[in-house]
Amino acid sequence: MAHIAVVAGDGIGPEVVAQARKVLDAVVPGIEVTEYDLGAARYHRTGEVLPGSVLDELAGHDAILLGAVGDPTVPPGVLERGLLLKLRFAFDQYVNLRPSRLWPGVAGPLAAVKPGEVDLVVVREGTEGLYAGAGGALHRDTPAEVATEESLNTRHGVERVIRDAFARAGRRERRKVTLVHKTNVLTHAGSLWARAFAAVAAEHPDVTTEYQHVDAAAMFLVTNPSRYDVVVTDNLFGDILTDIAAAVTGGIGLAASGCINPEGRYPSMFEPVHGSAPDIAGQGVADPVAAVLSAALLLDQLGHADAAARVTAAVGTELAGRTPGASVRTEEVGDRLAGYAVA
Amino acid sequence: MAHIAVVAGDGIGPEVVAQARKVLDAVVPGIEVTEYDLGAARYHRTGEVLPGSVLDELAGHDAILLGAVGDPTVPPGVLERGLLLKLRFAFDQYVNLRPSRLWPGVAGPLAAVKPGEVDLVVVREGTEGLYAGAGGALHRDTPAEVATEESLNTRHGVERVIRDAFARAGRRERRKVTLVHKTNVLTHAGSLWARAFAAVAAEHPDVTTEYQHVDAAAMFLVTNPSRYDVVVTDNLFGDILTDIAAAVTGGIGLAASGCINPEGRYPSMFEPVHGSAPDIAGQGVADPVAAVLSAALLLDQLGHADAAARVTAAVGTELAGRTPGASVRTEEVGDRLAGYAVA
Ligand SMILES: CC(C)[C@H](C(=O)O)[C@@H](O)C(=O)O
Ligand SMILES: CC(C)[C@H](C(=O)O)[C@@H](O)C(=O)O
Repeated sequence: MAHIAVVAGDGIGPEVVAQARKVLDAVVPGIEVTEYDLGAARYHRTGEVLPGSVLDELAGHDAILLGAVGDPTVPPGVLERGLLLKLRFAFDQYVNLRPSRLWPGVAGPLAAVKPGEVDLVVVREGTEGLYAGAGGALHRDTPAEVATEESLNTRHGVERVIRDAFARAGRRERRKVTLVHKTNVLTHAGSLWARAFAAVAAEHPDVTTEYQHVDAAAMFLVTNPSRYDVVVTDNLFGDILTDIAAAVTGGIGLAASGCINPEGRYPSMFEPVHGSAPDIAGQGVADPVAAVLSAALLLDQLGHADAAARVTAAVGTELAGRTPGASVRTEEVGDRLAGYAVA
Repeated sequence: MAHIAVVAGDGIGPEVVAQARKVLDAVVPGIEVTEYDLGAARYHRTGEVLPGSVLDELAGHDAILLGAVGDPTVPPGVLERGLLLKLRFAFDQYVNLRPSRLWPGVAGPLAAVKPGEVDLVVVREGTEGLYAGAGGALHRDTPAEVATEESLNTRHGVERVIRDAFARAGRRERRKVTLVHKTNVLTHAGSLWARAFAAVAAEHPDVTTEYQHVDAAAMFLVTNPSRYDVVVTDNLFGDILTDIAAAVTGGIGLAASGCINPEGRYPSMFEPVHGSAPDIAGQGVADPVAAVLSAALLLDQLGHADAAARVTAAVGTELAGRTPGASVRTEEVGDRLAGYAVA
């Protein structure tokens, strides 16, 4: 039986993760869970972000389920670089998977887009690009200061994530992959991405392909999001595009995400895209849907495709039954989702 | 009297620029114009993109009005790096000004946002960042290939564009500047931007400030664009955010843009954000509004604030009188705008 690590984290993290676990237990009884205390609270208490011993222990699990980490009192970068990005890089989670659906029952912000019309997934590269941490500063705090950030892209890293995108597209109905980059300005990295994309595309004649510059893609996500099926892109572009995709499908409150090491050599990590929302923490009003959808991605990755589909369908039932604008109770939603998923 | 260079360019460029010139003539008679033949057509005919002699001649003008350059037959990067970016860098156009308004009469894509509610301007840095052209590739076309793109940021370059943003905010009603970056990941450049921003903000106690990560800003531009007044950001983030802002205010068909050297040491350049649209070129159906709004930005930069305001108001009259979804005739729109602007 699978053994997963749970990092509930800060703010609403523990509340929403509790519901995700409830649903997991309902659909796949017997998954073993070890809880890890990481995040802003631990950082303030101990000064530690991710001790090496904890990283080693996490490596022994089949997957990680994370609620949310962070708090306005932690300096920017500490938990991002020290925990979230650390895990992505240490566990070679090169596929950052971010599905976006406009669910029936959810009012998106776009007047012309009806629920059910958007169903896309962004396959974001997770271990390279501007997230590599290459860069520095000279003459800091003087008028002569120069600061650099370097985007590092390897054929190895680019090709493997593109392969993953095509494999996913091949399992979907529309079988279409859109490469997003900025080849007209970032010519070196852009050329590498474009050539790797063309090479992998040649192996998949059944998949339709297109290319868009990132600025155009950002625009079309707003004016015509239903045109996308699978989008593959680099780390930073993926960060931005997935938040737009979340916004047009009802907000990051519903968005799930997986940081995946597809070969399973290291544990993959699954987490809602929303943050720790300290303003509503502890009130039992956080929507656990994104955490539950993240648990569905986890199940899918661990080979429980059927259970994953049932959890996803349960979310569909839940959202279709909601009154737009009505508030939710975290626990009640979890109970309903667990019920729908086993019905 | 001012002397401007006009680069009508490709596709619909000449058609929309003709209307912009008509309006310029109407509101400020006597502006001298020299036409320059640059773009895809010239590149195909002569192989030249921007000869040094033309660059020198352009430098002698007070401003440049550009229609659109480009064509699917030109390899990516050639006109971008060789012409558009070349001019931005050669003429030190460090302020890339991109206003977005949701005009009365225009149906934006967002259900909850009413015309008149969005009126923001993005002040995008134009001469640094990932656009510096620093980067390269090693082991090209082998499995060991690595390609880099480097973002270069100087205190000099960052501070001057932030100063421009605060100066503009001080002349606006809401007096608010939002800094957008990704300080939690791009820690070196992010820290430079944040410190320069704080320093300039301290000199402007009358201006409200806020900071947002680029992914959050991309999202809020969709869910709540009316919260923004002046947004200042780096070159690449500005590229993406301005297309989102254009999308939520009715599309890039209406968006104007200026590449400005505020000190006037070099000519500033003004252009619609839309491209050359070869599919509709020559039919007289391209909407010249973005070109005309770009001409208004040009007038403002050359000290004709009053004429600029009249042209902008003329666009407001034109758009308020349109039937949503109806097609336009390029020349008729130009005639009407010239008429409104002098009325
Ligand atoms: C918190 C931050 C490091 C992270 C990222 O930029 O990847 C977040 O924005 C995300 O999208 O998961
Ligand atoms: C054509 C391209 C070089 C340019 C840019 O990226 O700046 C365009 O997208 C823009 O926004 O003006």
